[in-house]
Amino acid sequence: MEQQAQPPLRVGMVGYAFMGAAHSQGWRTAGRVFDLPRQPVLAVICGRDPAAVSAAADRYGWADTETDWRTLVARDDIDLVDICTPGDSHAEIALAALAAGKHVLCEKPLANTVEEAETMARAAETAYARDQLAMVGFNYRRVPATSLARRMIADGRLGTLRHVRVTCLQEWLVDPEFPLTWRLRREQAGSGSLGDLGAHIVDLAQYLAGERLAGVSALTETFVRERPLTDGTEGRRTGAVTVDDAALFTGRFASGALASFEATRYATGRKNALRLELNGERGSLAFDLERLNELWFHDAGQPAAEAGFRRILVTEPDHPYLDAWWPPGHGLGYEHTFVHQARDLVHAIAEGRRPEPSFADGLQMQRVLAAVEESAAKNSVHTPTSD
Amino acid sequence: MEQQAQPPLRVGMVGYAFMGAAHSQGWRTAGRVFDLPRQPVLAVICGRDPAAVSAAADRYGWADTETDWRTLVARDDIDLVDICTPGDSHAEIALAALAAGKHVLCEKPLANTVEEAETMARAAETAYARDQLAMVGFNYRRVPATSLARRMIADGRLGTLRHVRVTCLQEWLVDPEFPLTWRLRREQAGSGSLGDLGAHIVDLAQYLAGERLAGVSALTETFVRERPLTDGTEGRRTGAVTVDDAALFTGRFASGALASFEATRYATGRKNALRLELNGERGSLAFDLERLNELWFHDAGQPAAEAGFRRILVTEPDHPYLDAWWPPGHGLGYEHTFVHQARDLVHAIAEGRRPEPSFADGLQMQRVLAAVEESAAKNSVHTPTSD
Amino acid sequence: MEQQAQPPLRVGMVGYAFMGAAHSQGWRTAGRVFDLPRQPVLAVICGRDPAAVSAAADRYGWADTETDWRTLVARDDIDLVDICTPGDSHAEIALAALAAGKHVLCEKPLANTVEEAETMARAAETAYARDQLAMVGFNYRRVPATSLARRMIADGRLGTLRHVRVTCLQEWLVDPEFPLTWRLRREQAGSGSLGDLGAHIVDLAQYLAGERLAGVSALTETFVRERPLTDGTEGRRTGAVTVDDAALFTGRFASGALASFEATRYATGRKNALRLELNGERGSLAFDLERLNELWFHDAGQPAAEAGFRRILVTEPDHPYLDAWWPPGHGLGYEHTFVHQARDLVHAIAEGRRPEPSFADGLQMQRVLAAVEESAAKNSVHTPTSD
Amino acid sequence: MEQQAQPPLRVGMVGYAFMGAAHSQGWRTAGRVFDLPRQPVLAVICGRDPAAVSAAADRYGWADTETDWRTLVARDDIDLVDICTPGDSHAEIALAALAAGKHVLCEKPLANTVEEAETMARAAETAYARDQLAMVGFNYRRVPATSLARRMIADGRLGTLRHVRVTCLQEWLVDPEFPLTWRLRREQAGSGSLGDLGAHIVDLAQYLAGERLAGVSALTETFVRERPLTDGTEGRRTGAVTVDDAALFTGRFASGALASFEATRYATGRKNALRLELNGERGSLAFDLERLNELWFHDAGQPAAEAGFRRILVTEPDHPYLDAWWPPGHGLGYEHTFVHQARDLVHAIAEGRRPEPSFADGLQMQRVLAAVEESAAKNSVHTPTSD
Repeated sequence: MEQQAQPPLRVGMVGYAFMGAAHSQGWRTAGRVFDLPRQPVLAVICGRDPAAVSAAADRYGWADTETDWRTLVARDDIDLVDICTPGDSHAEIALAALAAGKHVLCEKPLANTVEEAETMARAAETAYARDQLAMVGFNYRRVPATSLARRMIADGRLGTLRHVRVTCLQEWLVDPEFPLTWRLRREQAGSGSLGDLGAHIVDLAQYLAGERLAGVSALTETFVRERPLTDGTEGRRTGAVTVDDAALFTGRFASGALASFEATRYATGRKNALRLELNGERGSLAFDLERLNELWFHDAGQPAAEAGFRRILVTEPDHPYLDAWWPPGHGLGYEHTFVHQARDLVHAIAEGRRPEPSFADGLQMQRVLAAVEESAAKNSVHTPTSD
Repeated sequence: MEQQAQPPLRVGMVGYAFMGAAHSQGWRTAGRVFDLPRQPVLAVICGRDPAAVSAAADRYGWADTETDWRTLVARDDIDLVDICTPGDSHAEIALAALAAGKHVLCEKPLANTVEEAETMARAAETAYARDQLAMVGFNYRRVPATSLARRMIADGRLGTLRHVRVTCLQEWLVDPEFPLTWRLRREQAGSGSLGDLGAHIVDLAQYLAGERLAGVSALTETFVRERPLTDGTEGRRTGAVTVDDAALFTGRFASGALASFEATRYATGRKNALRLELNGERGSLAFDLERLNELWFHDAGQPAAEAGFRRILVTEPDHPYLDAWWPPGHGLGYEHTFVHQARDLVHAIAEGRRPEPSFADGLQMQRVLAAVEESAAKNSVHTPTSD
Repeated sequence: MEQQAQPPLRVGMVGYAFMGAAHSQGWRTAGRVFDLPRQPVLAVICGRDPAAVSAAADRYGWADTETDWRTLVARDDIDLVDICTPGDSHAEIALAALAAGKHVLCEKPLANTVEEAETMARAAETAYARDQLAMVGFNYRRVPATSLARRMIADGRLGTLRHVRVTCLQEWLVDPEFPLTWRLRREQAGSGSLGDLGAHIVDLAQYLAGERLAGVSALTETFVRERPLTDGTEGRRTGAVTVDDAALFTGRFASGALASFEATRYATGRKNALRLELNGERGSLAFDLERLNELWFHDAGQPAAEAGFRRILVTEPDHPYLDAWWPPGHGLGYEHTFVHQARDLVHAIAEGRRPEPSFADGLQMQRVLAAVEESAAKNSVHTPTSD
Repeated sequence: MEQQAQPPLRVGMVGYAFMGAAHSQGWRTAGRVFDLPRQPVLAVICGRDPAAVSAAADRYGWADTETDWRTLVARDDIDLVDICTPGDSHAEIALAALAAGKHVLCEKPLANTVEEAETMARAAETAYARDQLAMVGFNYRRVPATSLARRMIADGRLGTLRHVRVTCLQEWLVDPEFPLTWRLRREQAGSGSLGDLGAHIVDLAQYLAGERLAGVSALTETFVRERPLTDGTEGRRTGAVTVDDAALFTGRFASGALASFEATRYATGRKNALRLELNGERGSLAFDLERLNELWFHDAGQPAAEAGFRRILVTEPDHPYLDAWWPPGHGLGYEHTFVHQARDLVHAIAEGRRPEPSFADGLQMQRVLAAVEESAAKNSVHTPTSD
């Protein structure tokens, strides 16, 4: 193919924890499964601890390492900077990378504040004029089943939307002895379940609905307010949890559809129950990330005697991404979302198309989260999502 | 058994539509399945249309008929008045029946307004001093699976509660050509999905949690505001829908647990998805009325490698109500809740115990619904549930 | 309705254990739910123990009692004899009842031997010429979901059948200390899981397929060969289990479709997992009695990207039997099969139609079971089902 | 780690179709996820068509190519030969590779005949004395859920086994116009669904049970006997299907447990329903490959009122293979079985342990399949599995 004549895409990744491992898998695998116009190269991995970053490079297969992201960003043998750090450093790194002429992939949430996100979106817009692309990593859009859901909704299979309900239920904070990690401190994580899980479900809801939330009414809670410290800081044994443990909110879409959201880390027994259901005048769709190869569809046009939610096993060649994978019935896993993300971003770069979700999408999401926090602080009063 | 020496319990029922049929089934069957201290007798059925009420008596097996509930209430060969009419007549009938010395079973919701419900609760309290009992018909407490859930929670199997989420999803209004029935008019029905479905899920949530909602934040919507008239009233072709189509609300329990509720008649493909899940520090429970013989339980005390939600098929002799029914694996249906309701009420009467849910419980429920409507009218602001 | 002018149908029932309770429920309820041309009357219940039969009459609502079935059969105020005894007495009672001019409903299996069944089928044929009807009680045909499955198959929704697989998995013999009841003795029960559960699944398979098994290859096993006696017979502590604990067999239908069957009482954790699946060129159907309000249908004509097994909640007015019951989503239970059986038999009697399944069907089933036993005894060799 | 001092493991792979792609993914990924004592190197890929093998090398990331497996086998820069060709060439390649001093991984089934398999097993035994390992690729043993099942059974969680039932249901031959590929010709494929799917389910059943089948009784069928040719051979339009379309068999394990098997390509709507259930005196396990991240467990020791099959989401660090992957609730897919296979084989080689399943296991499997074919040819008579 002529496309293959394009140069490889040299990736520099910052961060090597959970997201770093997942992104590595994505970059390493995308070109082995899909026909890509540019071949991703795992060029440089960057982290502050020299020994740890070197071990990560060996493990994940990166050719080189850096210990300062400023150096990474400045290298001219890097085409794209992939940001897998906690949210408090996203803005600084992304702005520097865009300024240095790189494409950027930034893990969600885009930033910890609306202000940072605004700056980033503006910088992305400016960079786009210079053919640099910037994308936020809402990987759950790229589960084949959610992509299929989006396609069906765009095709009008649900008709006028009435309801969107989404939860993301996890359980890892149920134990009050679970320690106070960075994810439980506002200064690093920005928020708790809201930014971590809520961001995913709001993004998915808006992506699938094909429209934006107009306003929200919210409730947040921190059930366990003190947790053991792991680092013995200042001789104290426990420290304050400064983020939300759970966030519940309802909302209205621009079209008038109603939405409800719940993000929690206290749903005992639920590992990653990102569940969604959309009801429209012509049909309904339902999905559960714990069974990610399935999409449930109810077609309101079926005769009543034969109607029902049907379980679509999303492993057919006609399904999104699936023509490149295995035969029907041979399911994919969580990490494939990162392979698909890498694939889509490479195509966007090769074609100069603005990738989705863009930094502007990331900013809008941030505004929704801010409205959630504002409503929660104001007795749940319905709070418009400023645009 | 000596208990059998007690006199039969002569029932007079007002109303013979859906609820009348279901209650008839309950009264007719309870004594055939359970050992009851007093045998229910289907004595008198009452309705305004003489031909229709006579046909209903034949069909459902009632010995006699009346066409005026005042006459029924005045008969001295009736021990209990069972009210199966729309909500706008509950108060008047119940007050008269209590005044006439009868026991009363009143379908939910107790009344259409808090004021009516207050009067009814006071009358019930006064009557209780005269050994008359009054009960509200929240039949979903008496599904064996929900009864089992209550028992397990009372036994401490969930520990400190963190989350309660309940929905009741139906679809019968999705079609905008569905006609304007009494259930869509405020003057008769009081409210829409809120009083019809929301009352059930709030009752179940409070019953299972063993505690009350302290406040709510709500959103209601009427998606289709005009619907075809069926009766050609005043020559018009359509009339205004004056109740809510859907109600979403979040809330806080007294203990601090968070709750979310959704009642809708626009959930395409969902027939009667009354789904609930409770998460506590020690475990979780989940239920779906569309699979009413199952209760799902997660025990947080299980070793992680073997942990999971287990599907309890609630058909064992050790399960509530089940020792009187069929062998394990032979499930029950919807109407059995009315058999169990009849059974429990007969026992309460024979033993002089206040039945649950009482009129006071019905009143408290009404206050929750009123708080929901108030919050919805005030931009979703968190609204305390007055006690 | 003119039909109501027909006289009531006076039922005399022999036996009052599990099946007696279930049949009582059927007779009592059928006329309260369905429009019936003749109203069933619970006239006489019969059992050998006078105190027990009298208690059963009170409990289940029978007007009169007998302690000798011969007397019952001779009574001229009885129109139909309903046989709910163990299999070893079916032939004698049924033959006497038919000779006495009664209609007969006989619990499955029709008899304990092919010879008895042949005699019974001949007698039924003769009686039919005298307008007497005889029916076998394969109640699982009358679950709305299985009735719907039959209707869909008859409508050609599956096309040419390829596979039929059916299991009936129970667990009540897993414990080796479970005592030696009559169901474990060949002289009374005829066979073990084969006649009890296997009869059901072979009947359902043939009923749904609309054709008969041509031959079978079988394996049977008795895992626990000695069990505790309950009655202290002859001073012994244990007695021999003389029936099969489990029966597995494969077979071929006349059309060439393949079938597999498993009946067992050793499936730990399975309460009554009567599961079936049929695969045809145009579609597939699946059912599980533990979720009896659901039927799963796969339509091979759907576009691949949207295809899947759909869960039909069989509670719609368009579904078999359902127009007389509750609104959509309000499920039925096990006992409703007996209500439907009563309904269908009353209609057949009123219209002089041969009821299904007939005694001839019961005989053919017996021949299949005999072929299973023969094959099992002959090293599983494929054994034709004689006709 | 010191282990890393061991040399890399240079792999030469023959074949590059479906299995070749899957094995490539396994070799490429294993060392990126797991700590391996030797790092796999994708050294040489081999296929007859030079252009195609070169494209495959590029796509899957192999360093070099060969077009003759004899040359590959002779190369001294290869440590292991991975055979991903159709069954008719397995024996020849594997024997040559073992003779050339290589370790061998051979896709299942081991061979197309018992004779070939015997020769291979003997050669593997001889080679083992020279520290060469030989393994058969039954990858479904390495789904975390099936590995967990094996661990639980080995730990005695099921107690004495009573039942093992396994199916592998696919649908890709339902359409009679599907063409006559090599998988439908005996000379290449050896058998049809039996060798392709049946081999998997018999292997899994024996692996999980921890014991071998003593004998089988079988039925096979070819529903569609002529299919369109794709290559226009000899001017004919259709050719004969010379393998089975479906195979059903029952069997007995050495311990007396009963087993049933079904392998078919005509199960309309089933994509890859490899379903298994094992019932033992102490518990039961169930699994469905279409939901491969779940294992269902029933513990017979639970109190009856709380007992039920529990859904274990097999994504915990305590589960097999999972400590190296993602956090709980982030599921794996089909291809991960090949990553795990590569991991386990590398460990076995590094430690000189005989890998499982060995060629001897592959031979025993072949004997089971031969017994199935023999029984099917002899009227389903029970046929011992020679050892």
